[in-house]
Amino acid sequence: MKQLINVPERVVTDALRGMAAAHPELSVDVERRVVVRRDAPVAGKVALVSGGGSGHEPLHGGFVGPGMLDAACPGEVFTSPVPDQMARAAAAVDSGEGVLFVVKNYTGDVLNFDMAAELAEDEGVRVAKVLVQDDVAVTDSTFTAGRRGTGGTLFVEKIAGAAAAEGAPLERVERVARRVAEACRSFGVALTACTTPAKGGPTFDLPPGELELGIGIHGEPGRERRPMMTSGEIADATVDALLADDPPNGPVLALVNGMGGTPLLELYGFNAEVQRALGERGVAVPRTLVGNYVTSLDMAGCSVTLCQVDEELLRWWDAPVATPALRWGR
Amino acid sequence: MKQLINVPERVVTDALRGMAAAHPELSVDVERRVVVRRDAPVAGKVALVSGGGSGHEPLHGGFVGPGMLDAACPGEVFTSPVPDQMARAAAAVDSGEGVLFVVKNYTGDVLNFDMAAELAEDEGVRVAKVLVQDDVAVTDSTFTAGRRGTGGTLFVEKIAGAAAAEGAPLERVERVARRVAEACRSFGVALTACTTPAKGGPTFDLPPGELELGIGIHGEPGRERRPMMTSGEIADATVDALLADDPPNGPVLALVNGMGGTPLLELYGFNAEVQRALGERGVAVPRTLVGNYVTSLDMAGCSVTLCQVDEELLRWWDAPVATPALRWGR
Repeated sequence: MKQLINVPERVVTDALRGMAAAHPELSVDVERRVVVRRDAPVAGKVALVSGGGSGHEPLHGGFVGPGMLDAACPGEVFTSPVPDQMARAAAAVDSGEGVLFVVKNYTGDVLNFDMAAELAEDEGVRVAKVLVQDDVAVTDSTFTAGRRGTGGTLFVEKIAGAAAAEGAPLERVERVARRVAEACRSFGVALTACTTPAKGGPTFDLPPGELELGIGIHGEPGRERRPMMTSGEIADATVDALLADDPPNGPVLALVNGMGGTPLLELYGFNAEVQRALGERGVAVPRTLVGNYVTSLDMAGCSVTLCQVDEELLRWWDAPVATPALRWGR
Repeated sequence: MKQLINVPERVVTDALRGMAAAHPELSVDVERRVVVRRDAPVAGKVALVSGGGSGHEPLHGGFVGPGMLDAACPGEVFTSPVPDQMARAAAAVDSGEGVLFVVKNYTGDVLNFDMAAELAEDEGVRVAKVLVQDDVAVTDSTFTAGRRGTGGTLFVEKIAGAAAAEGAPLERVERVARRVAEACRSFGVALTACTTPAKGGPTFDLPPGELELGIGIHGEPGRERRPMMTSGEIADATVDALLADDPPNGPVLALVNGMGGTPLLELYGFNAEVQRALGERGVAVPRTLVGNYVTSLDMAGCSVTLCQVDEELLRWWDAPVATPALRWGR
């Protein structure tokens, strides 16, 4: 696969330079790889910091801004950022009210955010952590003990970000984040492998007539390979996997997410089938987001995340947000 | 190439069903293929209507909402919508202040919007038209006499949409739209072909080690094929092509656009090189938009559009907009 890059070693640095040029409302430290709200620290507000390997854009840098993250730390492609980045981000955004680390469940991320928390606490920053482990496809996988963290991260960052913007103290923001993380379930499907800059070709082999159900966002193996399915069949299999894991007893937010290489035209069509499948199974969906939010480079495919909400969580979901990738309200 | 679809014949219908489910703020007539602001017609406001073949999402349906389009008419993939759709859209959104048709320069679109204007005028709707023909790569091409309309469409719809939202009368909105259309230049590069649902495979042949400079948004031939280039080389070639056509004598807005299959990580890196290339040539860029806005299904590649602006056009660019794909301000 051809890539729009200079050299593999500079992909993340180049992207941060380009992000800085496009988003003057963000402060991008290209050398140290930290993306921060320009107006941070925000007085009296708990700060949210996330991060992880690059290659999942707009996650996390595209979610920095009022109502969501205060800072993001991108690692190399599919590689955890280092503790120094996270500790530096925490120091940059802490107003004195403390910092919540939003951590996707990959071993490197978990270890490095733990070390970063110690570093930050040594500097007098109060730190809380929430672990996102929403992918129902497999338990234990490449890079992960337990369940992988995927699309649910968006809901955790948005809803806990809204609680923080409203002035909730650290303990409350942490509790909200944990509630959201526990209320999220995701399942992904790959039609093709993705191409990492270092490798320059597909990271795994997926034959022309097959797809993989339960794929991870780094192309980690899923549950099974099957002959190619229709959009409707994929929606049924995905929704069944989600509901089998945890049947919601109330309304859900839905993220119908593209893995990067699937056209928006197809994603909207897939959403029609996801909504049909949920409707047939009696699940109410007050809000739906369709687009490429938690991606895997150029992989073709999709994932669905459901987040069960009560009125309070729904109100925080609807609260204003102003980031490069997610933006609504006043 | 595998596609996330049911059957090729239903791709556009399915996408409209999915769009309706995700965007309650839009009124989507799935049968008749018209996407309309739910609050249309807006009293006292000139309405903007656009449309064209599907496969370029979020263009145009994703640009319907306050501050931009009042309605969009999607055709089949890479096929013009029919005059009935456009006339129906015009009737649905006209408040009595008239309707501006924003037309990309493809022969089918031009003919059908002309017929639609006659139909609408027969029903008492005042209609003005603006033709977007911003692609500097080639003159005359598959589907086109003259220059093709591509990324400049986004600037025309946004800026004329802001003028209309401010209450400008039809003649003024038309004049603004024409100014913007004349101020835009685009140039696109393909790394891969795209896959149409009907064909199910690449629409043209582009060998592994080559790219095509000057590609159209339906994969129409460009200026030349070359051995694969770096992101920096592509940026230089693109910026040179744009400035050779019309050297700006003032600041420009930049759209650094993905064709659909290129990851956002790469697009941001490409933006860094585009900004460098423009800076080296003395061009000031007060605003930049990076993302997949005017796409060609799953094609990997990019395009750059520059829109020269004065203070008035810049103010309209910055004015609030609230559509699925473009959203800022209050």
